[in-house]
Amino acid sequence: MKIVIVGGVAGGASAAARARRLSEEAEIVVLERGAHPSFANCGLPYYVGGEIESRDRLLVAPIRLLRERLRLDVRVRSEVTKIDPQSKVVTVKDLETGKEYTESYDSLIIATGASPFRPPLPGIDNERIVSLRDLNDADRMRDLATKGATRAVIVGAGFIGIEVAENLVRCGIETTIVELAEQILPPWDREMILPLEKHLVAEGIDLRLGASAKQFDSAQGKVNVTLNDSSVIAADFVVLCIGVRPDSKLAAEAGIECGPRGGIRVNDQMETSIPHIYAVGDVVETKCSITGDPIQIPLAGPANRQGRIAADRIFQRESHYRGTEGTAVVGMFGQTAAMTGMSEKILLAKKIPYEKIYLHPTDHAGYFPGAKQMLLKLLFSPDDGKILGAQAVGTSGVDKRIDVIAMAIQAGMTVYDLEEAELCYAPQYGHAKDPVNMAGFIASGVLRGDQPIIHASTIADQSPESLFLLDVRTAGEYAKEHIPGAVNIPIEELRDRIDEVPAKQPIAAYCQVGQRGYLATRILLQHGMNARNISGGYRLWSILEDPS
Amino acid sequence: MKIVIVGGVAGGASAAARARRLSEEAEIVVLERGAHPSFANCGLPYYVGGEIESRDRLLVAPIRLLRERLRLDVRVRSEVTKIDPQSKVVTVKDLETGKEYTESYDSLIIATGASPFRPPLPGIDNERIVSLRDLNDADRMRDLATKGATRAVIVGAGFIGIEVAENLVRCGIETTIVELAEQILPPWDREMILPLEKHLVAEGIDLRLGASAKQFDSAQGKVNVTLNDSSVIAADFVVLCIGVRPDSKLAAEAGIECGPRGGIRVNDQMETSIPHIYAVGDVVETKCSITGDPIQIPLAGPANRQGRIAADRIFQRESHYRGTEGTAVVGMFGQTAAMTGMSEKILLAKKIPYEKIYLHPTDHAGYFPGAKQMLLKLLFSPDDGKILGAQAVGTSGVDKRIDVIAMAIQAGMTVYDLEEAELCYAPQYGHAKDPVNMAGFIASGVLRGDQPIIHASTIADQSPESLFLLDVRTAGEYAKEHIPGAVNIPIEELRDRIDEVPAKQPIAAYCQVGQRGYLATRILLQHGMNARNISGGYRLWSILEDPS
Ligand SMILES: Cc1cc2nc3c(=O)[nH]c(=O)nc-3n(C[C@H](O)[C@H](O)[C@H](O)COP(=O)(O)OP(=O)(O)OC[C@H]3O[C@@H](n4cnc5c(N)ncnc54)[C@H](O)[C@@H]3O)c2cc1C
Ligand SMILES: Cc1cc2nc3c(=O)[nH]c(=O)nc-3n(C[C@H](O)[C@H](O)[C@H](O)COP(=O)(O)OP(=O)(O)OC[C@H]3O[C@@H](n4cnc5c(N)ncnc54)[C@H](O)[C@@H]3O)c2cc1C
Ligand SMILES: CC(C)(COP(=O)(O)OP(=O)(O)OC[C@H]1O[C@@H](n2cnc3c(N)ncnc32)[C@H](O)[C@@H]1OP(=O)(O)O)[C@@H](O)C(=O)NCCC(=O)NCCS
Ligand SMILES: CC(C)(COP(=O)(O)OP(=O)(O)OC[C@H]1O[C@@H](n2cnc3c(N)ncnc32)[C@H](O)[C@@H]1OP(=O)(O)O)[C@@H](O)C(=O)NCCC(=O)NCCS
Repeated sequence: MKIVIVGGVAGGASAAARARRLSEEAEIVVLERGAHPSFANCGLPYYVGGEIESRDRLLVAPIRLLRERLRLDVRVRSEVTKIDPQSKVVTVKDLETGKEYTESYDSLIIATGASPFRPPLPGIDNERIVSLRDLNDADRMRDLATKGATRAVIVGAGFIGIEVAENLVRCGIETTIVELAEQILPPWDREMILPLEKHLVAEGIDLRLGASAKQFDSAQGKVNVTLNDSSVIAADFVVLCIGVRPDSKLAAEAGIECGPRGGIRVNDQMETSIPHIYAVGDVVETKCSITGDPIQIPLAGPANRQGRIAADRIFQRESHYRGTEGTAVVGMFGQTAAMTGMSEKILLAKKIPYEKIYLHPTDHAGYFPGAKQMLLKLLFSPDDGKILGAQAVGTSGVDKRIDVIAMAIQAGMTVYDLEEAELCYAPQYGHAKDPVNMAGFIASGVLRGDQPIIHASTIADQSPESLFLLDVRTAGEYAKEHIPGAVNIPIEELRDRIDEVPAKQPIAAYCQVGQRGYLATRILLQHGMNARNISGGYRLWSILEDPS
Repeated sequence: MKIVIVGGVAGGASAAARARRLSEEAEIVVLERGAHPSFANCGLPYYVGGEIESRDRLLVAPIRLLRERLRLDVRVRSEVTKIDPQSKVVTVKDLETGKEYTESYDSLIIATGASPFRPPLPGIDNERIVSLRDLNDADRMRDLATKGATRAVIVGAGFIGIEVAENLVRCGIETTIVELAEQILPPWDREMILPLEKHLVAEGIDLRLGASAKQFDSAQGKVNVTLNDSSVIAADFVVLCIGVRPDSKLAAEAGIECGPRGGIRVNDQMETSIPHIYAVGDVVETKCSITGDPIQIPLAGPANRQGRIAADRIFQRESHYRGTEGTAVVGMFGQTAAMTGMSEKILLAKKIPYEKIYLHPTDHAGYFPGAKQMLLKLLFSPDDGKILGAQAVGTSGVDKRIDVIAMAIQAGMTVYDLEEAELCYAPQYGHAKDPVNMAGFIASGVLRGDQPIIHASTIADQSPESLFLLDVRTAGEYAKEHIPGAVNIPIEELRDRIDEVPAKQPIAAYCQVGQRGYLATRILLQHGMNARNISGGYRLWSILEDPS
């Protein structure tokens, strides 16, 4: 068996390593265009910013190790320029010598990844307009960032853009992020990342949402970036982080089926449309495990596991890729945003029925020092309570809760299962009722009709006649700030002052985060009133109200 | 509906709060013997040590809040001395006045918790021999610890004993822990907590394992603690942490069925053997969700959720307690130990077939600063790969992995599901192949026969003739330390030196943590040899070898 692998990093190196473990006999050739196989793409931004000090640390499995330990025939600076599925050979260009040669294969794995998108804008061909994919890029950017530059523009506020921004700030560079969407981190729902946007601004980042770069001009060693509003920023360099495109040209030219967004189509054993050719990682179109819809998900976990599965398939193993829930995490200036499953916007777009709840639990028991509040959103099916997605933002404990909910989604669990989840508890780690339980309690209460809710985002649309806004916080909390038009009856007084609440009108009760509002809702409902709780309370409302 | 609740802390207060939310009409009487309802038992050790500075922080729901917000009739210093199920009344003793009165109920919830065990040893009735259950105890202990004491003895190294020890050391007290078992933290498997024992010793704790206190003598304001080896420790005070016993006397006297270890028997809706009487929390016998066996599990999460379920049952809700996996976590001097599901010793005792694997992953990507290694053990069924339990010990990321695996157990998942788990990844949070995936890979490999393993604990029993020990680490690693009798062939050289390995003899390969040993095993197996990998590698072997 001779296996040829195109691309030697996350998916490719994983496939090669697994193939070797499965077969000592196989001839395994890894062809990598760049200077290094198996490097830590995900560490590049932190190398640019100096948090990762040594470049060598990024070489996860150095070439020598791959050669000596795994007896892989790794060839760097070797670009595959053509695949001929008929004769089962690839054409390889040695980038050192410029010479081309062919290499035959029994099985071919395409793990070419995805390239940063470079939009065809005037002036884009400027050596000070860079992007970040490999070590060369990182070296160049580190150079730019540490040798006299004072101002940079990042185009795109996806997770790589955000990570780069944090690291440029770390280098002391005044940084502007230009993002076409009205929010950073497009996969997240908007309200979830509004607090993070404020945080970025507080850290000194000049955040331009709903903005785009129109043109780039070279001037006195700088790039003048012209935005759609005609403002111009003079930057020492520009970083393009507006997403990636599958490096599938090679595959498409060989007649391998690709999806509309360029991803190579594969089945759950990573087989492409052409026999003996497999594809894994950023270059493929995979499926969403929840809807079954095709999706391109350029993340390292899927790439690594898919590489393993492709190798398994070659050796007749029954491994299957289950699709992705899009579980992801990103850190920025001490904050964390994590998500799994479907976002509300995707559910809306796909017209999938859902309900959602918000809560603001602390990462660990409030009575233990250092507890930090997070914002957690749970999306679930209104029919059977099946968990559809979750997002969380905060300082700590965020990735843990999303990982736990990710497992629940993968197990097909419901919000009722979260109610009864048994998780670790000691005061410095969590709660006797963990945020995951709490999310389950609230969501189950909603589905059982115990806790009818109304969403803060819909409040503004209602006239005061159609909705009585009841603030059940203390008089002090109310005086400080409240939703306009709300009437204050502290929860402790509600029972005695119930006749101040209109008996026939729909009522939206709220408190700071939702818990007292829930109790108020219970009280009112049991008095036969038409009450709902504003999910996420005043805090969520104020996030939505003041997105600036 | 009149609900009377005996005990007003974790289980009792949760039941009362939930009952109120379900019914505004119900009369809800909470009878609490102590001075405070709803306090943070789990925070007590940290209050003693001063990490939690203010006593008020421990009052999770102050009595006023329970009265005013939830309209609970909370009576403190009120001890229930008798239950009469026939006439449905309880007798209450007002501990302030000494007066007794009766209180009728429609539904009664017993949430009396469990008391620290006080063994009937000579001299035990000494006011300097204390234990830690409530705020009074904590005040007393804090007093003892901060007013001139220099030496304390803790009897019992369960999680409370360990937490108390940490906090006494924090107070500058020379602390001895005396533990009858040969290990601390009895629910964990021994090898898992050996590193923690060393850690405790390094932090200055005088750890006496396999030792017991035999006698206590008062002398010059101190307690002389005589151990079973006749040594005597002169302590300023002694803390008893040798477990708790259900406070079920009241229930037993009323004819309510209790298990052999004293726990009140309940069904999955927290109903006792007598109609209209429910019991929740530390006082009950519940069941292990994996085996269905009865178990007493004095933990706050179950108590809280059971309280909620009892209230639900009273109002005809279909809530069911699913049993416990024993998910728990404890911190000590910056280290964390967490577990879920069954331990190896329980599996052995119950004769349940199992296999296990060990790994030493870091909490996050090794190339990102601050990565810390943990020890993770996974127990699973050799038949279908069903996950039976997991334990982990380390500095960070430990509770996360155990929570994720806890969810997997609750979902009835297998090690094959862990292989394909999709979890959060960015370098500061985890790995592209998370430790949970990695545990799944290894365990699945074992079950598929790709990675036959041998356990470090069995090596010593084998003669050199029956087992060829192959160390595949570098010559340098081998020179530093190795398993006696092992032959060194670095993994990179193994293929070329394969004839140095006996073709017919069983071989145990190993490296530092198991990964190179696995590759060696693959190589040897494919040469037709009878090879196994030492799970957990040299590191685990050395933990077992040198438990001191
Ligand atoms: C800056 C940055 C930060 C990231 N952070 C995270 C993170 O925190 N979490 C996360 O999950 N993911 C992260 N990712 C994404 C993750 O790195 C990718 O999903 C993953 O590397 C994809 O693996 P792959 O094997 O498909 O592609 P790659 O790892 O990109 O490897 C593809 C390789 O193929 C080579 N190649 C392409 N074409 C050819 C050819 N014709 N011939 C030979 N070789 C070729 C390329 O040179 C490249 O080295 C990050 C990516 C970047 C760039
Ligand atoms: C120091 C310490 C640390 C702990 N740390 C943790 C931890 O980190 N994680 C964890 O999960 N668990 C921990 N626990 C255990 C946890 O606190 C208990 O599992 C939980 O509190 C049990 O709840 P419960 O309602 O059953 O009993 P409790 O919370 O103990 O409440 C029972 C109450 O009933 C009252 N009572 C008893 N008899 C009567 C009577 N006859 N009449 C009236 N009132 C009565 C008692 O005064 C008591 O206040 C810890 C416990 C202690 C003591
Ligand atoms: C480094 C790289 C070549 C590793 O490939 P790999 O050997 O398959 O992966 P790992 O080093 O994680 O090891 C996993 C294998 O070792 C085994 N293993 C790991 N620890 C073990 C232990 N303690 N005992 C026994 N086996 C162990 C696993 O079972 C698995 O083998 P399997 O797939 O045959 O079941 C590849 O992942 C890579 O290039 N990564 C860097 C690029 C990248 O991922 N970038 C994106 C993220 S920054
Ligand atoms: C404090 C105590 C009285 C709380 O009881 P509780 O009100 O049931 O619990 P919580 O305060 O956690 O609130 C949970 C309830 O509020 C609801 N809730 C919480 N946050 C909410 C939000 N943001 N929006 C809407 N509802 C919310 C939950 O759904 C749940 O209600 P439900 O059970 O009717 O579904 C009780 O748990 C206690 O005494 N604890 C201290 C003692 C203890 O547990 N010790 C051991 C650990 S140290």
